Amino acid sequence: MKIQHFEESEVRRVKAKGVRGVVKRVLIGASDGAPNFTMRLFHVDPGGYTFHHSHDFEHEIFIIEGKGEVVTTQGIRQIKKNYVLYIPPGEEHQLRNTGKSRLSFLCLVPNENEL
Amino acid sequence: MKIQHFEESEVRRVKAKGVRGVVKRVLIGASDGAPNFTMRLFHVDPGGYTFHHSHDFEHEIFIIEGKGEVVTTQGIRQIKKNYVLYIPPGEEHQLRNTGKSRLSFLCLVPNENEL
Repeated sequence: MKIQHFEESEVRRVKAKGVRGVVKRVLIGASDGAPNFTMRLFHVDPGGYTFHHSHDFEHEIFIIEGKGEVVTTQGIRQIKKNYVLYIPPGEEHQLRNTGKSRLSFLCLVPNENEL
Repeated sequence: MKIQHFEESEVRRVKAKGVRGVVKRVLIGASDGAPNFTMRLFHVDPGGYTFHHSHDFEHEIFIIEGKGEVVTTQGIRQIKKNYVLYIPPGEEHQLRNTGKSRLSFLCLVPNENEL
């Protein structure tokens, strides 16, 4: 059994065009022996944002701190701590930190989609 | 896209021998169209505990509030907010709330193991 604070997981900056102020931790994944899905934690700086994109796999997201907005195909929706997001395969999305403190969220994907 | 506060998900008491003071919410699952895994949220009252058991599927857990302990095959370990637990298939476990406030945690499982 793996038991640790999330800060014990290595943090890596997401360096890519279309992303600003985002770092990531893989909390549970294939390297722990997890057979199916991967739990990642993203931290987004104030003013930062994730990719605006879509892909053929789902996201299951839980916001653990901060606030922001989600760009959806139906417009912009507000999110904050304790919000849950299910993003189906193929649906465009982007998360943005519109607050003054860090926005942090869990984002789980099938193992094969954690790169 | 589903976007909501966790409190918008229905809460159900877990009524079973070997469980005390536990309620559950299914935040994301097959009924939302999620193809692979289910995000559940459990709340455990002070003094409450989950099953002490094992099963052939994994748990991916994130503690969102409170504190407690986990019974493992190697003894008891302390847990609190922001801790991550990976429980492999087949490994015995139990979560107990040893604090004075609610212990809440996300626990994700493959869809077919959400009953």
